[in-house]
Amino acid sequence: MFEQLGLIGCGLMGGSFALALKRAGLVRRVVGYSKSPSTTERARAMGVIDVEAPSALLAVSGADIVLIAVPVASTEATFKAIKHLVSNDMLIMDVGSTKSDVIQAASRVLRERVRSFVPAHPIAGKELAGVEHADPELYKGRQVILTPNDQTGAAQVQKAIDLWTALGCRVLQMSPEQHDAAYAAVSHLPHLLAFAIMNGITSQPQSKDYLSLAGPGFRDFTRIAAGDPKVWRDILLANRDELLKQSQIFQRNLHALELVISSGNGEALQGLLEQASQARGNWTLGNNPQN
Amino acid sequence: MFEQLGLIGCGLMGGSFALALKRAGLVRRVVGYSKSPSTTERARAMGVIDVEAPSALLAVSGADIVLIAVPVASTEATFKAIKHLVSNDMLIMDVGSTKSDVIQAASRVLRERVRSFVPAHPIAGKELAGVEHADPELYKGRQVILTPNDQTGAAQVQKAIDLWTALGCRVLQMSPEQHDAAYAAVSHLPHLLAFAIMNGITSQPQSKDYLSLAGPGFRDFTRIAAGDPKVWRDILLANRDELLKQSQIFQRNLHALELVISSGNGEALQGLLEQASQARGNWTLGNNPQN
Repeated sequence: MFEQLGLIGCGLMGGSFALALKRAGLVRRVVGYSKSPSTTERARAMGVIDVEAPSALLAVSGADIVLIAVPVASTEATFKAIKHLVSNDMLIMDVGSTKSDVIQAASRVLRERVRSFVPAHPIAGKELAGVEHADPELYKGRQVILTPNDQTGAAQVQKAIDLWTALGCRVLQMSPEQHDAAYAAVSHLPHLLAFAIMNGITSQPQSKDYLSLAGPGFRDFTRIAAGDPKVWRDILLANRDELLKQSQIFQRNLHALELVISSGNGEALQGLLEQASQARGNWTLGNNPQN
Repeated sequence: MFEQLGLIGCGLMGGSFALALKRAGLVRRVVGYSKSPSTTERARAMGVIDVEAPSALLAVSGADIVLIAVPVASTEATFKAIKHLVSNDMLIMDVGSTKSDVIQAASRVLRERVRSFVPAHPIAGKELAGVEHADPELYKGRQVILTPNDQTGAAQVQKAIDLWTALGCRVLQMSPEQHDAAYAAVSHLPHLLAFAIMNGITSQPQSKDYLSLAGPGFRDFTRIAAGDPKVWRDILLANRDELLKQSQIFQRNLHALELVISSGNGEALQGLLEQASQARGNWTLGNNPQN
């Protein structure tokens, strides 16, 4: 049970976290700050936060738990804004989709107080940004990846594990590098491709007709292309090395398919499709052999 | 109301069609044929068909409506098998995802009897192949594209429109070329990309770990990669020219994104992501301005 959550960034991710903590009876009071005062106001009107803070620093004042839920590239600025009130018994987490950059920023800015910071990435979200879509169930049943390092306080890591577990999540630990390599492959690359296909279609004069004819396969395939442009700008840039590596691997495999299609080699094509279809057919969400 | 449906191919698409017609009271009797006798048997045991036919030709015998629901590349062989029993007052349809190849095969094989054939593409399906997943609701609320040409009988086209409308579908007409260009962009290309990303991931030594960490975005993005390899082999080959053209357009847009990511140009990247995100955000399934 925490006394006070300092919530920095009252959007979908932050708002859902506050609601989940409240519903689980894990926090007494939520003090929230957002860059846009209207967002903070809305969050209070909705009962997501109890008190509006006029700055990130004041959201941290008196908090025993802090959640930083801002676009990845704003994380370092947030650390700078709050560093004078970071204390050793506080638990600070983020929810960012990239972890190497975040942990480097934390070390640089927080120095020895970095022990309070447990980098976290809950594998949850939806394409509807903003506090008005905050949902206490958003994290339930999802995986949460923690990427602590040598400097991270053991007590903080344990508190983080207990908290996410209490919210119905399955908690995994790995290095930031492992995290970023894996999510380049299974999240950042799919987003990049979904953005690219939408731009490819809209670049064509017949795009309206084409889009009007698209079915449920297209709906699901492109759902993630509706993601928040600022959030995804930051993620794709923060993890660019791993992402571009994955994009090369993808393109090699696309070219292999194109080759057998253009040469009309049905047998080879079927072999490649079987490989993909089996891999996807055997996959299920949250099936984690590490557990 | 039809007397007898001759169903050639008792899989997901054909089986769902038979069930839908029965439930709507639009057919008295279904005679079914599948290449694999065990499939035909299962279809009868499930009540999808009433009578098992030992050949495609015998499934057509006595039918006033025929549905050809086989992989696209088997369509021509099916026309050849049934041509001697095709009559002028019959309605024959297919459900294939490509239309130029099918209508060419029909003209070649059926000659003047091609008037009975109305090429059809219901925009429906799921990743679970086989008659055991047949579902009378599969087509409900979906779009169905008809691609008749000068040779197609007007009475047959009207019957086809009435039938699909009675099943709860919205019926559109266009040329086979328009159809194939559009579905290369919004269906065949997404499938190709989904197959390629699965093969790219499984080609890496860490693929099991990566896949275990994937979340709901990955689930939806790759759902179509589980499609039937034989069905998709035929579609990708049948529509290869339009597909490869769309793949080039996609790759140009992917390279544009990679370029601004590798150069770290956040502003340009955000612009490209906004374009994609807006286009997808404005899109809804079955929103058809042509209606």
